[in-house]
Amino acid sequence: MGRKAKDPEIRRMELILAAEKLFKEKGFEDTSVSDITDAVGVSHGTFFYYFESKNEILKAVINYYVGMDKELLEKFAFDDSMSAMKKIQTILDISLGQKESANSENKLYQYLHKEGNELLHSEYVKKSREITLPLITRIIEQGNREGTFDVKYPQETVEYSLYLINDIQHELRAAPRSNEAYYRKVRALEIILTRILGMKDGSISLS
Amino acid sequence: MGRKAKDPEIRRMELILAAEKLFKEKGFEDTSVSDITDAVGVSHGTFFYYFESKNEILKAVINYYVGMDKELLEKFAFDDSMSAMKKIQTILDISLGQKESANSENKLYQYLHKEGNELLHSEYVKKSREITLPLITRIIEQGNREGTFDVKYPQETVEYSLYLINDIQHELRAAPRSNEAYYRKVRALEIILTRILGMKDGSISLS
Repeated sequence: MGRKAKDPEIRRMELILAAEKLFKEKGFEDTSVSDITDAVGVSHGTFFYYFESKNEILKAVINYYVGMDKELLEKFAFDDSMSAMKKIQTILDISLGQKESANSENKLYQYLHKEGNELLHSEYVKKSREITLPLITRIIEQGNREGTFDVKYPQETVEYSLYLINDIQHELRAAPRSNEAYYRKVRALEIILTRILGMKDGSISLS
Repeated sequence: MGRKAKDPEIRRMELILAAEKLFKEKGFEDTSVSDITDAVGVSHGTFFYYFESKNEILKAVINYYVGMDKELLEKFAFDDSMSAMKKIQTILDISLGQKESANSENKLYQYLHKEGNELLHSEYVKKSREITLPLITRIIEQGNREGTFDVKYPQETVEYSLYLINDIQHELRAAPRSNEAYYRKVRALEIILTRILGMKDGSISLS
C-alpha cells in the first residue's frame, strides 16, 4: 500500500530467513504461513507470489543451507594461505560441532530426521554431498602436493570418508557426547581418517 | 492321508528352501502360496500351519540367509588354523563376489532393493550387521595378536569398515564391474582397508 516494493531477491530471502528461524524454534508443523508473513510484515499474497506452499519454502530453506555449506567450503578450498591439513582439521571441527547443537535444540533438524521425512532428508544429503565432494577433493589434492597427505584416489577416498563422518554424526544424534560408545567411535575415526590420508596416527584430533 | 508326517523342522525348512528358489527365479510378487506348496507337494493347510502368510515365509527366508552368513562367518572366526589376514581376504572376496551374481539374476535380491521395501531390507541389513560385527571383530583381534594388523578400536573400526563395504556393494548394483568409476572405487577401498588395518599399501587386493 504505497510502501516501496523491495528488491524481489531480498524479499524472498527475508521470507526464507524468517521461515528458517520459525521452523527451528517452533518446528515445521507448528509454523503457519501467517507466522512467516507476520514475522516479515507482508501479506499472504506476497508469500504465495514467491512460494507455492509451506513445503516449497521448506525446500528453499534447505537450498539456503546447502548454499551456505558451499560458500564456507569454497572459502576453504580456494584459500591458498591455509595448509590442507589445517583446512581438513577445521572442516572436521565444524562438522562435528554443528551437529551437536543441532541435535538438542533445532526443531527443523529434528523434523528432517523424523520418520516419514526420509525423502526430504536424503535429497538434502545428496545435494550437500554433490557440492562437498569436489571441494574437499581439491583440498586433499592440495595436501598431496604439500606432502602432508598421501592419497592415491582423492575423490573416491573423500566419498568413503563422507560416509564415515555421516555415521559418526548419526551416532551424535543417538548418544550424548559424554557417552563411552561415542568416545570410542570418535577415537577410532580419528585413527581411521589419519591413516586414510596417509599420515601418522595422532595427526588428526576430533573434538 | 496315511503319508507319514515329516519332522516339522524339516518340513518347515523344505518350504523355506522352495520359497527361496521361487522368489529368486520368479520374484516375490509373481510367486503364489500354491507355487510353494506345489513345489514341496503339501497342502495349503500345511503351509499355513507353519507360516501366517507369504510375507511371513519371506521373513523366514531372510532369517535363513542371516543364519547362513552367521554359520559361514563363525567357521572363519573360530578356525585357529587360518591367519586373520587370510580370513579377511576371503571374507572380502565372498562379499564382493556374491553381490555381483545377486545383482543380475536374483529376483529376490532385486525385490529387497525395490522402492517401498526399504524397511524389510534395512531389517535384513541390521540383523546381518549384528551377527557380523562381533565375529569380524574377533578376527581383527586375532590379527592384532598375530602382529599383521594394528587396530586400536577393533569393534568400532569394523563398524566403520562395514559401511565402506556396504557402499561398494551399492556401487556394484549401480554399475557393471568393468566400469571405470567402479574400478577406481575398488582400488581406493583396497588402500583404505589396508591402511585402516595398519598394514602397508598393497597388502589387500579386492577382486
